Amino acid sequence: MTEFNATARKGATLETAPTLYIEGSGVRFAYRQLGPSTGTPLILLQHFSGNIDAWDPAVVNALAADRPVIAFDNAGVGRSTGQTPDNVAAMARDAVTFIESLGLSKVDLLGYSLGGCVAQQIAAEHGPLVRKVILVGTAPQGGEEHLLAVLQEAFSDTDAPDVRLPLFFTKSSASQAAGRAFLKRAYARKEDRDTESVSAVTDPQAKALITWCATPDPEHSILSAISQPALVVSGSRDTMLPASNAYAMFNAMSDAQLLLYPDSGHGALFQHHALFVNHVRTFLDA
Amino acid sequence: MTEFNATARKGATLETAPTLYIEGSGVRFAYRQLGPSTGTPLILLQHFSGNIDAWDPAVVNALAADRPVIAFDNAGVGRSTGQTPDNVAAMARDAVTFIESLGLSKVDLLGYSLGGCVAQQIAAEHGPLVRKVILVGTAPQGGEEHLLAVLQEAFSDTDAPDVRLPLFFTKSSASQAAGRAFLKRAYARKEDRDTESVSAVTDPQAKALITWCATPDPEHSILSAISQPALVVSGSRDTMLPASNAYAMFNAMSDAQLLLYPDSGHGALFQHHALFVNHVRTFLDA
Repeated sequence: MTEFNATARKGATLETAPTLYIEGSGVRFAYRQLGPSTGTPLILLQHFSGNIDAWDPAVVNALAADRPVIAFDNAGVGRSTGQTPDNVAAMARDAVTFIESLGLSKVDLLGYSLGGCVAQQIAAEHGPLVRKVILVGTAPQGGEEHLLAVLQEAFSDTDAPDVRLPLFFTKSSASQAAGRAFLKRAYARKEDRDTESVSAVTDPQAKALITWCATPDPEHSILSAISQPALVVSGSRDTMLPASNAYAMFNAMSDAQLLLYPDSGHGALFQHHALFVNHVRTFLDA
Repeated sequence: MTEFNATARKGATLETAPTLYIEGSGVRFAYRQLGPSTGTPLILLQHFSGNIDAWDPAVVNALAADRPVIAFDNAGVGRSTGQTPDNVAAMARDAVTFIESLGLSKVDLLGYSLGGCVAQQIAAEHGPLVRKVILVGTAPQGGEEHLLAVLQEAFSDTDAPDVRLPLFFTKSSASQAAGRAFLKRAYARKEDRDTESVSAVTDPQAKALITWCATPDPEHSILSAISQPALVVSGSRDTMLPASNAYAMFNAMSDAQLLLYPDSGHGALFQHHALFVNHVRTFLDA
């Protein structure tokens, strides 16, 4: 059990918790901390362009019911200071700086999309720091991506009230309805919202993700260095980072479970949030 | 909620429940019924050569904690009368006869290996009868199998106290230990044990399974006819029916979840029994 130095935030939600700040290696990191003050903290690593308020309260609050959960902005993102790096390895170093600056010596990681690449890098390089790792909607180094084409198509969909509807959800009415419900939850917080990402964030992040996928790793050197228990999750119809990545990652890791969800895209964890939370808790509590 | 005609068996276990019999279409079916008398019954469809006592009490009893669970011998198997058919379609007809003879009009199916082929056939052809379907360690029609080679190798392993150790578990010490624990559980019942399968059972069953896999179905006509929610489960290193089958089945069904487990073979559901039970309950209760 890791005892936090910070005040316990039991009862706070992603929508109501104050945004906190901590310094590490010259960066002031913005974060929110939920759940009890004891237990292995679950650190959330966010997707391309996302900030703290891009997480789904239905997922984060439910996970925080029985463990500490920490959402944060990595260097340069949202209200964290510093530069957004253009490579996953540097993002991993920044995230470890943040984790260590909180005084944490053992954490679980939930990495989503680009955050899943960062989580792989951290888990592979920092065995003692990472107890278990959850990789959602992500790709291995050398994996398959269709980012630019899908982003371009999504941004040309001017009827969508939010680009995440075409990007994160399938065209089915059930998935689109789940997407609208997710957006409503994500916009529930009105005060003290995080800063939206601008090109100084998204340009280097896009380069990092595309470079990660464009770098061949036929031996899966990163995945094979992950000895911790891993949970790999993907939607059936993720258009940006297809589910075949998740299947390949499962096959390349020594202790991974794979979960693929029906009729869902990149936002499978938000669409199937109750199922996802149940699966994550089962995995973390095993 | 389906009300049973039969006596409730709440509190009984796979090891202690009496073996019951019911007639249908000239076959006397042997079965055991566990769990409460109300709720959608979960019907277990057994693997090649397996009888009622080849199920894992750790799985069956845990699932029966909050739903009716029925294990049975299909026609010709164990202590059921009749002929064991040499094709999956006839096995499906026999299983439906058994289910209907119990007066059940809505059931969940858990089909394992050959039983998973039977479950696919039933779910595809009997939409109103089947609420949800769980397919474990199985293959689609036209799927990949290595049955004869793996069986031959396993039966040549004369050091193994039970052929299921090399057949159902990986070579890792963790998997073999889980296999020995499974066998201990499966042999816990001493009285009123089911009859072991002889060649009159296993020969036609082997033909049925091999024919099923040898019959091309590039359009996945059976899987695409399954509109019910499906849960597809496989071990990472199933040597007889590889996990690639599970991935292909997931991709061919409209409403499937896929779960793949680490360091496990054909007996993944017995090795990871607590995880499997948790996942099945989450799926059935959703």
